[in-house]
Amino acid sequence: MPQTQTARLMDGTGLARQIVETTSATAADILRRTGQRPCLATVLVGEDPASVTYVRMKRARCEKAGIESRHVALPASIGTEELVATITGLSQDPTVHGILLQHPVGPHIDERAAFEAIAPAKDVDGVTMHSFAAMGFGLPGFVSCTPGGIMRLLDAYDVDLTGKHAVVVGRSAILGKPAGMLLLGRDATVTYCHSRTADLTSIVRQADVLIAAVGKPRFISGADIKPGAVVIDAGYNAGNVGDVDFDSALERASLITPVPGGVGPMTIAVLLAQTVDAATRQLGLG
Amino acid sequence: MPQTQTARLMDGTGLARQIVETTSATAADILRRTGQRPCLATVLVGEDPASVTYVRMKRARCEKAGIESRHVALPASIGTEELVATITGLSQDPTVHGILLQHPVGPHIDERAAFEAIAPAKDVDGVTMHSFAAMGFGLPGFVSCTPGGIMRLLDAYDVDLTGKHAVVVGRSAILGKPAGMLLLGRDATVTYCHSRTADLTSIVRQADVLIAAVGKPRFISGADIKPGAVVIDAGYNAGNVGDVDFDSALERASLITPVPGGVGPMTIAVLLAQTVDAATRQLGLG
Repeated sequence: MPQTQTARLMDGTGLARQIVETTSATAADILRRTGQRPCLATVLVGEDPASVTYVRMKRARCEKAGIESRHVALPASIGTEELVATITGLSQDPTVHGILLQHPVGPHIDERAAFEAIAPAKDVDGVTMHSFAAMGFGLPGFVSCTPGGIMRLLDAYDVDLTGKHAVVVGRSAILGKPAGMLLLGRDATVTYCHSRTADLTSIVRQADVLIAAVGKPRFISGADIKPGAVVIDAGYNAGNVGDVDFDSALERASLITPVPGGVGPMTIAVLLAQTVDAATRQLGLG
Repeated sequence: MPQTQTARLMDGTGLARQIVETTSATAADILRRTGQRPCLATVLVGEDPASVTYVRMKRARCEKAGIESRHVALPASIGTEELVATITGLSQDPTVHGILLQHPVGPHIDERAAFEAIAPAKDVDGVTMHSFAAMGFGLPGFVSCTPGGIMRLLDAYDVDLTGKHAVVVGRSAILGKPAGMLLLGRDATVTYCHSRTADLTSIVRQADVLIAAVGKPRFISGADIKPGAVVIDAGYNAGNVGDVDFDSALERASLITPVPGGVGPMTIAVLLAQTVDAATRQLGLG
């Protein structure tokens, strides 16, 4: 009879706090040495309430960490050309070190063109094609913030990835796809599952490391988790519920991220850390 | 008792011939309409005999298809800066439509920097970061030639990829990684295996579609092939031997590429097709 176990929780809140503390100290050092604060430009198109909240939260966290936050609010009616021109301007502005374009920008805009106007050196949100390919090829560059946060969590808990089977459920451009590339770069065997996967359960059951990034509440049952697996729940659904059924997963996993307090806080921490890294390089300090 | 079956062969030679015929006809049409032939620039650094042979073969195939081949032979002693400058020049030259930098360029050169000097619109060999990300995100762009050839073979034999488990053995930047991205873009469930994979056999046995791209003769045994699987052998080892043990695989697979005559001929066919596509666009005909 298999023993039930209780997984150790991966404390994203605590780890994010540590990262932000280090980041704040570096930001203060940059200010002392150059008279400039690292600066993140946030670009928001329209007034979608969720987007307004996200951007406000990111800006507040910047300010608290000693990072200047320069906000560019654009009307929902803006066209691709103007948006690209605005972002190109920020890419060329030496006082801006990082650029975040809040997704989504509206269906009439070519969002990819807007993202691509972000200079790779300022792509602290890790959304450009350059950043994706850098993750794929193991080259220097910024990572997408949530996958980057996941990797930092795995490292903080000394999860050995070499040869392990990592199963990524979800294949979005900012989460599933880059997460798989980063795991592959660390010598995991990587499987991408998604909405069209024929036999999801049998694949999930093989996962030594499971990344749930699908956006469906309690989509993955604890019964399908391999005993001893590391479970990273990157889902965040209404009612503070993840993509994994937490209670049942707790009895099977060896390590698991809670929701909230697991992956969530890591995303902004990585954004701040990468902004300060970008400033360090652009100011010739790194 | 499971029945033994004999796999149908996937005729890469025949399919490549069809593609080259269409490509030649388009090249002739371009010449008739513009007075220009599509032009592929080939860049070779040093005199590695295998590379010399590859480039000569590619050039001969270009000429035969009505594609101009402009060769740039550079000494092995060239530095990164000069190589980048040469390729940048070709990227800017309106009479050159596609650029192929023969790999490898020598250990003292930053090969990535050299590849990145190829304008995405001329990256007919699909080696740039832009092309990789385009494959990853399902955006327009050129594909890496061998993975592109594999996808054309799968399509020619009406292989339905949706929801199927595609296992890619090998993770090189020009073969395994982009092949996985293209399969994912076609709604396959994709697993990347490689030299560090802990239990390769058990994963290979799950493959509905197996892509062998590892470069080790007869590395995969027929006994490990799922009955009815589609087997794509992208390996090409000394003595005309693939990565899959052909004879034993033949009894398990439903479709299989022979070596030679499977994936091999497709690579150059895709290179020629993409060169003519590039010319079509750059000359404003497409």
